[in-house]
Amino acid sequence: MSTRPLLIIAGIGNATGTGAATARAFAKTGYRVALIARNADHLNNLVEQISGAGGEAAAFPIPEYTYTATTDVVDKILTHAWPTGGSSELRVALWNVGVNVFGTFLNVTEKDIQSSLEVHVTAGFAFSRRVILAFKENALDSAGSRGTLLFTGATASIRGNVFTSAFAAGKHGIRALSQSLAKEFGKENIHVAHTIIDGSILTDLSLSRRGDAAEAWKANPDLRLDAESIAKSYLYLVQQDRSAWTWELDLRPAHEKW
Amino acid sequence: MSTRPLLIIAGIGNATGTGAATARAFAKTGYRVALIARNADHLNNLVEQISGAGGEAAAFPIPEYTYTATTDVVDKILTHAWPTGGSSELRVALWNVGVNVFGTFLNVTEKDIQSSLEVHVTAGFAFSRRVILAFKENALDSAGSRGTLLFTGATASIRGNVFTSAFAAGKHGIRALSQSLAKEFGKENIHVAHTIIDGSILTDLSLSRRGDAAEAWKANPDLRLDAESIAKSYLYLVQQDRSAWTWELDLRPAHEKW
Amino acid sequence: MSTRPLLIIAGIGNATGTGAATARAFAKTGYRVALIARNADHLNNLVEQISGAGGEAAAFPIPEYTYTATTDVVDKILTHAWPTGGSSELRVALWNVGVNVFGTFLNVTEKDIQSSLEVHVTAGFAFSRRVILAFKENALDSAGSRGTLLFTGATASIRGNVFTSAFAAGKHGIRALSQSLAKEFGKENIHVAHTIIDGSILTDLSLSRRGDAAEAWKANPDLRLDAESIAKSYLYLVQQDRSAWTWELDLRPAHEKW
Amino acid sequence: MSTRPLLIIAGIGNATGTGAATARAFAKTGYRVALIARNADHLNNLVEQISGAGGEAAAFPIPEYTYTATTDVVDKILTHAWPTGGSSELRVALWNVGVNVFGTFLNVTEKDIQSSLEVHVTAGFAFSRRVILAFKENALDSAGSRGTLLFTGATASIRGNVFTSAFAAGKHGIRALSQSLAKEFGKENIHVAHTIIDGSILTDLSLSRRGDAAEAWKANPDLRLDAESIAKSYLYLVQQDRSAWTWELDLRPAHEKW
Repeated sequence: MSTRPLLIIAGIGNATGTGAATARAFAKTGYRVALIARNADHLNNLVEQISGAGGEAAAFPIPEYTYTATTDVVDKILTHAWPTGGSSELRVALWNVGVNVFGTFLNVTEKDIQSSLEVHVTAGFAFSRRVILAFKENALDSAGSRGTLLFTGATASIRGNVFTSAFAAGKHGIRALSQSLAKEFGKENIHVAHTIIDGSILTDLSLSRRGDAAEAWKANPDLRLDAESIAKSYLYLVQQDRSAWTWELDLRPAHEKW
Repeated sequence: MSTRPLLIIAGIGNATGTGAATARAFAKTGYRVALIARNADHLNNLVEQISGAGGEAAAFPIPEYTYTATTDVVDKILTHAWPTGGSSELRVALWNVGVNVFGTFLNVTEKDIQSSLEVHVTAGFAFSRRVILAFKENALDSAGSRGTLLFTGATASIRGNVFTSAFAAGKHGIRALSQSLAKEFGKENIHVAHTIIDGSILTDLSLSRRGDAAEAWKANPDLRLDAESIAKSYLYLVQQDRSAWTWELDLRPAHEKW
Repeated sequence: MSTRPLLIIAGIGNATGTGAATARAFAKTGYRVALIARNADHLNNLVEQISGAGGEAAAFPIPEYTYTATTDVVDKILTHAWPTGGSSELRVALWNVGVNVFGTFLNVTEKDIQSSLEVHVTAGFAFSRRVILAFKENALDSAGSRGTLLFTGATASIRGNVFTSAFAAGKHGIRALSQSLAKEFGKENIHVAHTIIDGSILTDLSLSRRGDAAEAWKANPDLRLDAESIAKSYLYLVQQDRSAWTWELDLRPAHEKW
Repeated sequence: MSTRPLLIIAGIGNATGTGAATARAFAKTGYRVALIARNADHLNNLVEQISGAGGEAAAFPIPEYTYTATTDVVDKILTHAWPTGGSSELRVALWNVGVNVFGTFLNVTEKDIQSSLEVHVTAGFAFSRRVILAFKENALDSAGSRGTLLFTGATASIRGNVFTSAFAAGKHGIRALSQSLAKEFGKENIHVAHTIIDGSILTDLSLSRRGDAAEAWKANPDLRLDAESIAKSYLYLVQQDRSAWTWELDLRPAHEKW
């Protein structure tokens, strides 16, 4: 019985964004997908959706993105007995976790900044550690990789701004980690990549904020990112062969002002 | 009779690098490819190679990469009567031109810096102008684009260094153009992208410089970029839909120190 | 009785580096200097040194750089009754805190990353908050400023690398804060600046690590930064008038490779 | 008879901006200042102004900023017999040259881009070459420097944008040179620095463009840079000792949006 490639995604949110789209896209190409999020209902819905389409997915709720809980959930995934049997090999992992801590500086609370740092960065370190350790056990695949670790970044990953002081601190921190890892583990044929999402993604949440303008905005892909398109960038990054790996790329709608 | 998509590539060199690999890759997917370089023999060899593989290519030698000659050669391409008939529509263009002007600063001559600026930047402005004007005539394709203008950059596009003062001045200049164009013409659904090639590409030339170490280096894709892999990044960039366009990505071998 | 300008410095370490040099430099120009560090002995030595030279300084030990302790210590400083009487006005604050968490990624512990984030970033948010609130009460000085908030950064503030994953995460995070603050509070005439120290500073600690090479290294200012020279950059930044404020500058020894 | 330090400034414009302010500031501290610009009248007015204030200045008109003309004018300056006698030693040089080539991309002419590249970059290479060769003959000064080469940059030095394609290409190119030079000649104790002027400088020209808003804008240093303040940054950069040299700093008004 053959070994199935495994993808872990942390950060599914309400299952209408980047994490969910990436799960669907990779499931379609034959990956088992292990999904981590705080909300079990959203996770289960996505698992059903993927299973219904013939894919293989499993839900791993996490109480909070702490260092320990993140380590534990990845360990649990790595020893998960998939119903269809056979063995799995972790080949791709996506750190897609985000916490909404926006507002002007004097409105940032102690909890906001701690939460941004713990969720984006501390838990990201725990996630990366477990993933890297698993990748190191892998043989090279046909493209010369032991595994690909992906990070979803944002405009705030490279620029601090008035409403993003707490958010940007966390996003800068985890981007720094992705660069350190790319430099250290490229030599061991582990590919680490980071995307800068420089615009709004079409999700239930982003749509709900737009009131009357929502339908027009939804209908116009010049103005907002499709999560499916971001997922395609992850498929592309995973397919790159070892002679030409990307650490970072930006993604924005055609009409975005930047 | 249907319209065939056309790709123009400026900078084929001796036809063993990025330009040639991109020509082959796009020809295989159905593009007519118009090839610009200074050396007609290399161009003709590549045209034969592509034709032999069932593709459609034509050679357009250019005496020097001046503003006028570059404008003229693109105009010539745009009115070229392809033997297989039917009409062509410019859909992708790649500015892949480079001039080797390396050395410590006091060895940079007036001709070196002028040549770096004229070939990389001035001719790049002429090329971009003709390409953008042609793209503006196009309808949106299924991905929401009127055309994609690609630029091949290098480490020296983002960092000046001891041996690259003249080269980096040119590469920084053309990168700036690519960013200006991305911002101005994204709004008109023209996609402009720039790659940072942060390592050595396997070509006849780069191989010949390595003496005894050449064979080991050639055999090890952890150490050098395959031109075919760069070409794949261009295929990917062209396929991105308008909701998620990349302006810039980096590419380097897995074991590259950076 | 006139109001004396006050400088707060957090991060005095063993009092042989940037914090101590900055304290001495500003004390000499008439600032009262309030010094924060974990080691009370080093603080007291520096206070004596400055007092002995005719300056005015006071020591404020902090148990750990937590959000609460940092808030408390700044509050204590702002209500401190200086022996020479008269009132003080906070005019300059320097966040110079650093924690040594270097090592390859798999040697980074949970405590390392938490400590880097808490000390560099969370405590930096608390510090900045109290400082900004105090600055907002100030009138404009003759240069058009209500106060200057300075951050000492490092190479790791802008680049992650093999030995710096935990350190860089913290330094990137606090740099992001400095940029957010510069953008938000420039409009209120509060100047926020960040320095990139891109080399080794001559301190007791950096000297002790060099063994036999220590004396030659100490004697050669082409190879290492003098803390006094960094202090001069802070004096310069504070003196800039509001028409031309710097957010970021880099500092490195003449012979540094970069 | 003692040797007088010499400053060369290329790019005086109409003598109301950065070049003129820098000339005055350095003349006041004892430098002989040699001024290069295309307009002899403006040059002569500035020379008179500086002489009238007890400084020493001389005018060196240049027909165009070509490679040859720039080389020639620096050579002429280096052999100039100053009326007050004694010898001069080139210690500081400022490349402050700029050409206004703004506009949307399709309005950029061949002449615009050639002019931007020739004036900003090619002539900048010629200037740097002569200056570096002169600096190499100098002994170290008390701060450990053989000389300081300064470049005035702009927002367009680090970002291309809709109206700046031609301007940004030139400014990116010369910034790249400044970085290459800083890395190559730091090792020889030659200091190279680049400033990013990220806002509008108060000059006759910038004022004239503001119509009715001109007086309010002129009166508000929160909104525009004083050339004198930029000059102070150059004084500071020249005074830095070799243990802590800055390559790049940004300067913008307190209320600038960025």
